[in-house]
Amino acid sequence: MKPTIDILRDARSAAPALSAAATADKNRALEAIARRLLSERESILAANAADVEAARETLGAVMIDRLSLTDDRVRAMADGIRGVIKLPDPVGRVLRREVRADGLIIEKTSAPLGVIGIIYESRPNVTSDAAALALKSGNAVVLRGGKEAYRSNAAITSAIRMGLRDAGLPETLVGLVEDTTRESAGEMMRAAGLIDLLIPRGGAGLIRSCVENAKVPCIQTGTGICHIYADKDADADKALRIIDNAKTSRPSVCNAEEVLLVHKDIAAAFLPRLKERLVDRRKEAGLTPVELRLDPAAAAIIRGTPAGEKDFDTEFLDYILAVRVVPDAEEAIRHIALHSTGHSEAIVTENAETAEAFVRAVDSAAVYINASTRFTDGGEFGLGCEMGISTQKLHARGPMGLEELNTYKYIVRGSGQIR
Amino acid sequence: MKPTIDILRDARSAAPALSAAATADKNRALEAIARRLLSERESILAANAADVEAARETLGAVMIDRLSLTDDRVRAMADGIRGVIKLPDPVGRVLRREVRADGLIIEKTSAPLGVIGIIYESRPNVTSDAAALALKSGNAVVLRGGKEAYRSNAAITSAIRMGLRDAGLPETLVGLVEDTTRESAGEMMRAAGLIDLLIPRGGAGLIRSCVENAKVPCIQTGTGICHIYADKDADADKALRIIDNAKTSRPSVCNAEEVLLVHKDIAAAFLPRLKERLVDRRKEAGLTPVELRLDPAAAAIIRGTPAGEKDFDTEFLDYILAVRVVPDAEEAIRHIALHSTGHSEAIVTENAETAEAFVRAVDSAAVYINASTRFTDGGEFGLGCEMGISTQKLHARGPMGLEELNTYKYIVRGSGQIR
Repeated sequence: MKPTIDILRDARSAAPALSAAATADKNRALEAIARRLLSERESILAANAADVEAARETLGAVMIDRLSLTDDRVRAMADGIRGVIKLPDPVGRVLRREVRADGLIIEKTSAPLGVIGIIYESRPNVTSDAAALALKSGNAVVLRGGKEAYRSNAAITSAIRMGLRDAGLPETLVGLVEDTTRESAGEMMRAAGLIDLLIPRGGAGLIRSCVENAKVPCIQTGTGICHIYADKDADADKALRIIDNAKTSRPSVCNAEEVLLVHKDIAAAFLPRLKERLVDRRKEAGLTPVELRLDPAAAAIIRGTPAGEKDFDTEFLDYILAVRVVPDAEEAIRHIALHSTGHSEAIVTENAETAEAFVRAVDSAAVYINASTRFTDGGEFGLGCEMGISTQKLHARGPMGLEELNTYKYIVRGSGQIR
Repeated sequence: MKPTIDILRDARSAAPALSAAATADKNRALEAIARRLLSERESILAANAADVEAARETLGAVMIDRLSLTDDRVRAMADGIRGVIKLPDPVGRVLRREVRADGLIIEKTSAPLGVIGIIYESRPNVTSDAAALALKSGNAVVLRGGKEAYRSNAAITSAIRMGLRDAGLPETLVGLVEDTTRESAGEMMRAAGLIDLLIPRGGAGLIRSCVENAKVPCIQTGTGICHIYADKDADADKALRIIDNAKTSRPSVCNAEEVLLVHKDIAAAFLPRLKERLVDRRKEAGLTPVELRLDPAAAAIIRGTPAGEKDFDTEFLDYILAVRVVPDAEEAIRHIALHSTGHSEAIVTENAETAEAFVRAVDSAAVYINASTRFTDGGEFGLGCEMGISTQKLHARGPMGLEELNTYKYIVRGSGQIR
């Protein structure tokens, strides 16, 4: 087994070969990688079958599905890479230009970060997606996937490296960590000088561990306790449609709604309709009903589970919605400030003033007026792709696309100027 | 003594009062602060006199000068604040706008960070400068100055808070940490959830401690082992002028040159001229000569101190220059990659190809062609001000102005859209 530190060092040494590469050269390499993913399909599927076989005992059906590759899914990975080819190159954009009276030309110019580290879990397609985004943005990348997907990830990485060689680039631009124990994640977190940006994509425990222990720059991603506030001036039909979509269209993702705040003036009329739509009608239709966890004021209006202490601080990722009645928009804002993870929040109101006060005051990556929180996504936001959703405020906030995988530097061109 | 954590909590509670403030309101508050600095001049000078008196035993003349305020210096602080009033408001800029086919309007909008923490040393003017920049960018700020300047900082903070009250804003928007022991710096580094950005401005020890221990987002600032590479195609006169300026115009600052790399083809002709200019002529003129610390190849050409092992990894901040002869530009780039702190580097060459290869390959905040590294400064770069110079790649790189004291959020306006 190759030591993790050596894989990181190799990536660090290879990075300069890509950081100054022309867009056409990077795209050629990505095309070569897409071809290799297709031509190596059989070995990738065989490796994946072995992973799936080994995981049957320990993983549930949902996780097995996330782990499983098919011919179509490998083709989709290659298509994904071709999608990245079409995206604009984020490197070398002049973000600010200043020509001084003495003739000095100062350009703030986007530049690759260097080496990106990614820690992720069972989905093997992340391996090719993340590698493609890192390479297009001029970075080397070291991937540390989950143990259960190791054979798949190794086969995918092998195909990617073949593509890099085909394109005349060092294969060590993409590294896969061979040690899949907790130790290797820790090594990456401590690899100061070798990793320029570490992106943990996984459960809250992994992300907390990164924030607490990382000596390398790290982006907090993903955890979403998303709130929707139905204001006294809400259009009730709009509110129901938005809440239903945000809660039930895909409860397992980070931009799904977890908490509903309802203005007291509309609660008596609105909550019964909410229960009808999310509970009763879903039951009738044979769908999983939403479990409503109600604060005392809401419980006085409709039936549901009494909300426990932790229900307003939990990312359920399930058909569960915590509901609280609030006296006004200010209290909704205060509740969000106290309980939100800073991912996505929405207000439903026809009152423009209340809406604007809400978006000004709420300190989250995405703040919505009259729309579902489910839109927080790189593709939906027009970034063309996504490396994760940052819930921190520094460097990147919200969906991270190619631009967020760059830094910048000041390039100053002179003719002998001194100060 | 008020506990540091309470000062941080107060700032956190006050922050929303400013984050959504209109530009005119922020400018009015800054003007009120400038007036209070002038009207409270006597008490500020008296407090400063007490600090200076107490420090006479322990601090040298240079540090005493940095600590000392005069009537003119306090007036300059007020002028500095009026300068910040004139700067554009960084908050609320729309950085990207996407209107989707379904009518959803997605705006990536700059927004204040929240609470900024600053740890700094003896210069009391940092107290008003940093407070003004933080307030203009919509942030609350908690200042932790040096022990030796505590009375001065407390008097300045008191004047600032009077100005905030005059303007109808909470005075706790600007906090001064009362505990000036090492413990309070540690408390700030660990104040997760209370500080959105911590800026350590001080010695390498403080900055290292932040990087190693901080649980809050932290910007590495300041340390500058800046290199100048005199290429084989350099105009020797230009090179000498630039090197002289970068080394001797102000050796104590972070953008001063510490290391000179000289191409072997020009070394025999260039190094004697370098010694003449930096050593012999300065001696004749009664100026401090530069001590040249020479690698063996340079020592074979001119006289000087043999370079020790650490001389190529030291921020001298003094009239000392480490000199190495390199075989080519590639080796200069490699040397910089290995030894630089990522602050500022320059190449002197008339060869445009070599120059462009250098700026592409060198991974530092500012990379110069034919100009002095001394230009790396917020004012010189046209940012209008400076909160420090970041040597890290995430969030902010190089001089930090008002824009770097902001984050952004996505504001999404809809009319009932669901996904």
